[in-house]
Parts: sequence; C-alpha cells; structure tokens
Amino acid sequence: MIEANDPTLQSWVEVPENSDFPIQNLPFGIFRTSSNPSPRMCTRIGNYVVDLAVMNYLSLFEELEIDNEVFKAPYLNDFMSLGKEKTRAFRNKLSQLFRKGNEEAENLSWHFLHPIDKVEMLMPVKVGDYTDFYSSIEHATNVGTMFRDPENALLPNWKHLPVGYHGRASSIVVSGTPIHRPKGQQKPDADKPPVFGPCKLLDFELEMAFVVGQETQMGESVGTNEAEDYIFGMVLFNDWSARDIQKWEYVPLGPFLAKSFASTISPWVVTLEALDPFRVAGPKQDPKVLPYLEYEGNHNFDINLEVEIKPEKGAGKVVCQSNFKYLYWNICQQLAHHTVNGCNLNVGDMCASGTISGKDPSSYGSMLEISWRGTKPVDMPDGSQRKFILDGDTVIMRGHCEKDGVRVGFGETSGQILPSK
Amino acid sequence: MIEANDPTLQSWVEVPENSDFPIQNLPFGIFRTSSNPSPRMCTRIGNYVVDLAVMNYLSLFEELEIDNEVFKAPYLNDFMSLGKEKTRAFRNKLSQLFRKGNEEAENLSWHFLHPIDKVEMLMPVKVGDYTDFYSSIEHATNVGTMFRDPENALLPNWKHLPVGYHGRASSIVVSGTPIHRPKGQQKPDADKPPVFGPCKLLDFELEMAFVVGQETQMGESVGTNEAEDYIFGMVLFNDWSARDIQKWEYVPLGPFLAKSFASTISPWVVTLEALDPFRVAGPKQDPKVLPYLEYEGNHNFDINLEVEIKPEKGAGKVVCQSNFKYLYWNICQQLAHHTVNGCNLNVGDMCASGTISGKDPSSYGSMLEISWRGTKPVDMPDGSQRKFILDGDTVIMRGHCEKDGVRVGFGETSGQILPSK
Repeated sequence: MIEANDPTLQSWVEVPENSDFPIQNLPFGIFRTSSNPSPRMCTRIGNYVVDLAVMNYLSLFEELEIDNEVFKAPYLNDFMSLGKEKTRAFRNKLSQLFRKGNEEAENLSWHFLHPIDKVEMLMPVKVGDYTDFYSSIEHATNVGTMFRDPENALLPNWKHLPVGYHGRASSIVVSGTPIHRPKGQQKPDADKPPVFGPCKLLDFELEMAFVVGQETQMGESVGTNEAEDYIFGMVLFNDWSARDIQKWEYVPLGPFLAKSFASTISPWVVTLEALDPFRVAGPKQDPKVLPYLEYEGNHNFDINLEVEIKPEKGAGKVVCQSNFKYLYWNICQQLAHHTVNGCNLNVGDMCASGTISGKDPSSYGSMLEISWRGTKPVDMPDGSQRKFILDGDTVIMRGHCEKDGVRVGFGETSGQILPSK
Repeated sequence: MIEANDPTLQSWVEVPENSDFPIQNLPFGIFRTSSNPSPRMCTRIGNYVVDLAVMNYLSLFEELEIDNEVFKAPYLNDFMSLGKEKTRAFRNKLSQLFRKGNEEAENLSWHFLHPIDKVEMLMPVKVGDYTDFYSSIEHATNVGTMFRDPENALLPNWKHLPVGYHGRASSIVVSGTPIHRPKGQQKPDADKPPVFGPCKLLDFELEMAFVVGQETQMGESVGTNEAEDYIFGMVLFNDWSARDIQKWEYVPLGPFLAKSFASTISPWVVTLEALDPFRVAGPKQDPKVLPYLEYEGNHNFDINLEVEIKPEKGAGKVVCQSNFKYLYWNICQQLAHHTVNGCNLNVGDMCASGTISGKDPSSYGSMLEISWRGTKPVDMPDGSQRKFILDGDTVIMRGHCEKDGVRVGFGETSGQILPSK
C-alpha cells in the first residue's frame, strides 16, 4: 500500500463527512485569489485550498529540491514534467505535513490555507493535443442501435481497437465557465437543403480524461505495462455535443464543429497514486486482443459518476448514475494504442474516455441515450421536461471512489448553457 | 498594389533565376547555426537566410518598436501576435532595407546573411490545434468513387460545408525530418481477424496549410470577409497517410493513427501579403452556399504545386503537378466555418487544405489516386515501380506562384521514410 493512502490517516485540517478531499486524496490544481491574482499551484484538503507556492516559500518542501518556479507556474505542466518519482515524493511529503500532529505545518497554516469559496479555480493544465476515445461498449452499442442496425450495433473494428479521434484542445475550459449554445448547419428535413441556426439538440457526454505527465519521442511506442508511467492523473470531462450539427457533418471524417465549441473539465487532477486503492478488473475482452493491447494487472477504477441537470430556476435532478469501471478499454490500452504508430505525446496532452454508459438506462451518460433520441423525455422537479439541454440549464458532473471508509473524489465539473451569441 | 510586391523591385542580395525567394517574397522562418545554436527568427532572399535578431540588434528596425525578444523567440508565434498592421509594416521595412541602393544595410550584411546551406531550418510555428479540411472536389470525388459509389461519389454534405476534422498537432515536423514507417492494425482479409505490423500502403497527401495569426475568444465567430485578418500566411503540408491503417480504423469517428504519426511542413511561412498578386477566383459553388459561407473578392491563389518521389539511390520522378487554385472551398470559408460554432482560435493554429488534386490524373495529389488503389503503378527512372511509398524514398513537395516575371515560392517540404522502429 502507498503510505499516503493509509485509510487510518487523519489531517489537522477539518475534513467534512462525505468530502471528496480527505488527506488520502491530495489532488492538484491551479488557483488565484482576489488579493493575489497570479495563477499558482495548489492542492485541497476538505474545504480548504492549499497554496503550494507559499508552502514552498516557507521552505516546507526544502529537501525535495523542486524549483520555486514550478509552484508559481500558471499550469501543472512543469510540475508533471518532474516525473513520477518526484511527484510521488511530493505527494508523500504533503501527506506528512498535513497529518494530525504535524504542529510545525499547522502553526504556519494561516499563511497558505484558503477557504474554497474565497478562491477562483483555473484550468489546471495547458493542453497540447486532446484525444477522445469511445471506450464504453454500452454507449457504442446504444448509438449503433439508434443510428445504424440494432443487430449489428458495434462496428467491426470496435472490439479490436480502442476507437478514438482527435478533438479540439483550445476550447477545453475549467468548471464554471459558461458556454454559449453553438450555431451551425443542420439538416432536419432529409428532402430540403440544410439550415443554419442555434443547435437544437445540445447534449452532454459524461466522460473522464487522463492527463499525460511524461513526453515520448516520435517513432516511440509505449507498451500497456509501462503506460501508467506516462499518466499523471485524471479529471472529470464533459464532452459537450451538438447532436444535430454532428449528424449532418460527421460522415466521413468524424465529429468537428459538433464538439469543438467547448469541453468542460474539473479543476482538480486526481493522481493515479490517489486512485490506486480503487483499482478493479475490467470487463473480459472477447475476442482476444492483439498482443500490443494485452495487459497485466487491474487498470480500471471504481469511480462512481453522476450527472445533474439544474434549470436556471428551481431544483436540479440527477439524470445519470454511472461508473468509470464499466469501460471496455482501459487507459493503458488507450495509451498503448495511441503511441503504437509512433505518435509522440507531450506533457499536458489529454485523453478522454468517451461517454461512460452502463447497462441500465439509469446509467446512460448522455441525453441522446437517456431520452433515447428524444422519445423518452425526462421529467424535471419543476414540471418541465428535458430531451436535451435548454438555455439556462447547468450540467454538473461529479465523481468519487469509496472504500474502507475513505472517499476520494474529483469534486465537480459544472457548466451553464447561455443562449447563442 | 502593396509596394513591397512591385515586380520592378530588385535586391542588393543576389537572387538566382527561378529562385522562390526574390525581394517580393520575404517569408518568415526559424533557424539556427552551428556557431549560434539558439533558434531565432529569419527571412530569406535568394540563397541567403537573414538573421532578423541580429538586424534588430543593429537597430535596423528601430522605428517599428518591436520587442527584441520577438526576434529571439524559438517560434514565430510572438511575431504573428503583433498583428497584421505591425507585421505588414515589418515586411515593408525589410523590403526597403534589401532594395538595391540601400548601402547602409548592404554594408552591414556580413553580420546577418548566412548561406542557406550553412544553417538548420527549424519548425517555424508552435502549433496549438491542427485542423485538416477536405476541400478539393476532385480528391473527394476520386476517393468517393474508389471506396463508395461512383454515381454518388460526393457525400450529401460536401457541397454545403467545408468538411474538416481535427488532426494531431504534436507530430507536425519541419522539412528534412525523417519519418519512421508507422505500425498498426490492418485488416487485409475481410474474413480474417485484423493483423498488426508495419503499414504496407504508406502515402503522401499534397496539401497546403494556413497559419492563424490572431486569436479569437470562445463564442466568437469570424465572417468570411474578415477571415484574412486572422491568417498570417501559408506553408506546404504533407499529410502522410497510412492507407491500410486508415481503412480499418476510420469508421465512424474519422482518421486517427493513420495520420497522427507525422505531417511535414515547409520551413518558410509565406505571408498572405506576398501571395496577394496571385489571387484568382475560385470555382463556382453550386448549390449556393449558406449566407455565412458567402464571400466577396478572390481568395483562391494560383500556386503551382508538384510532388517528387526520390528513391534512396537513383533519380527522382515528379509524380504530380497540381495547383492550389483548384480548391472548391477557400481559406476564408474554412476559417468562417471553423469559428461559426464559437470555437476559439489561437495564434499558431494550423489549418490544412486537404489533398489538392486537379481534374487530370497527372494532378492527383496522393499515391492512392495516382496509382488508383495500386492498380496503376508509377514507373520510376531506375526501373522500379511505385504503388505507394517504400522505405528509403524521399517525398518532396514544391510550390510557387509566377506572374509579371516575379516568382514567389515556398521552397520545398521533404521527408524520407525510414523502416519501422
């Protein structure tokens, strides 16, 4: 067991019951405050954000010999680039400093603790390239059933390789950023020319993404059993999707404007180390995969996920409860596949999972599936219905693991839809 | 007329006949030398690379008040970010300094002129996001005829919107970078499972790309008539493609590993200003496009393009002669479409045209089309044949405009294929 994950550990920082952020988590992010608007690195315990630049200034990490600039950088990329050995040692050091009984740190804490509601969380990572996989067999089957053939819902390649495509990196934004409803071409009537206007079928996709923490060179491939060395951690990921734009544009080269207007991520990158206790086996893969996709050990994670739709006025409703562990293809297979052709990775690259649906309709990860193309509207507490997302709605995704009385989570990723500009 | 484009202008730097780089061009790039390995900004006249950092140090651009760091930056992004007004003024200033009769500059020239064969050209731009369009009607028709239905070769959306998809930015490399043949899954036999190994059908795609020089904000759209304000210039672009990997992976989400192993660009970014004299009208678009894709003026460019295959030993052969002006969708329509959903652009983003084929088979821009899926091999001078690209082959693309006795070009983009790693 990684010592910092010991379920008996307790912090001198108060951690509310059901918090995603006990001392066993220690995720990383970037924040700023009204009194110091410079973006800088932080972690979180309970409802406090911890200013790591200040802690470093107070020489609390001295023996780790990390350059001061790493903590004052506007993104986590420099920190991740230190490599797993350093970043693991840093998490262990944080764990020691925040444990009950560490009076030196506690006595200094007024310098570096900020209540979460007094800070602004920023994009944690400078994303280089962004890839979106399509790794949920339930989601791919649902989509194939709706749009192609229920008898042959999965395309022939689906069980042989983790299907993925390149997405738009520039429009990945942090939780809390409002999103304007995209405009674009749609073809609602098969017999008439396309029309232009605001998207009418705006959807979310419940996903998670891993963040690359170590670069590779062009021509180099990473095997499944080394893949986790290249993965720093994970975030919640809402792959906003304009279904009507997508339907008209996506054949033959894939989704483009239907996705590129925005994706929303959680501000906290939870490390693979913090997720380690929550590993589970993935689904059996049949047919057998090619040797470069075989793997050892458990690389799925038991992460409870949910999606809530909150209208502008009135109560919200949880419309989906799913789990990251359902994914057919795991993150090591995704990374091995991504690099098998020699494609190089950079620190900060992001790879999303694809929509994470489960078997039960209550676990479907998009409104497309939940409302089954609009045929099964969702009743909201205020009496209204939702087939897709309306202007003013906020979509909130949450994710957490739980085991041996310890809950490690991601907080939430939230985005409100504003009318088209 | 832009004064710097005056065809009567001559430089005190010797410009060989048929050079792509007369004083009317003044493209921008990044270079280094063995005596000074720091990447820095340059232009080119004839066979000389001009060290702009040194020229600036000599106060030759003083009245333009450009920060010294811009010239010493490892990419052109900071320079492009100055905005069109500044970068145009800078090009005009260069034109004045290099004109015959400017003895001040000529007398100082031993400080900043380097023979092209004594320098190393580097990636000119830090690419944020990379998009590949599919804007040649001849290419799309050829592909549709081969793989789908000759009677309905174009998909229904093709004439209504410039089809495009996101590509991999990390593996865009500068001319001269060797490329390892990618490995990946292929399914040569429809009745058997997929196999893994080196790509057997390796291809080039003759493309050009524009470089974004001004950012936009999320939610903002750029109209066709303002689009050129956001485009700094153009490069040659070889979109290397693994046809066997592509065929098996690309349905339904588009090309992924078949493209992401490498793309090769020319080291010189030729500005839209230098291309201005070579504007021509584009093909008539029928059916009429939606209003957001309508445009005024000429936004196609008469750029002669060619592709040569050069075996490891022996003479090369030009296998394609095409022209950028054939493209159905122009760069302003591409940029307007890209931003119409509110997708934000960053300085350094790159948008490629898609394969540029013409009507005649001698103008087809990929081996897929030239050899018509391998059914019409190309005879090489050494007696060998090519259906696709072999290990050891170098693929060289060249492009230039010519009018009123002035030739403005891009030089070349060249890449040799090495065996799989």
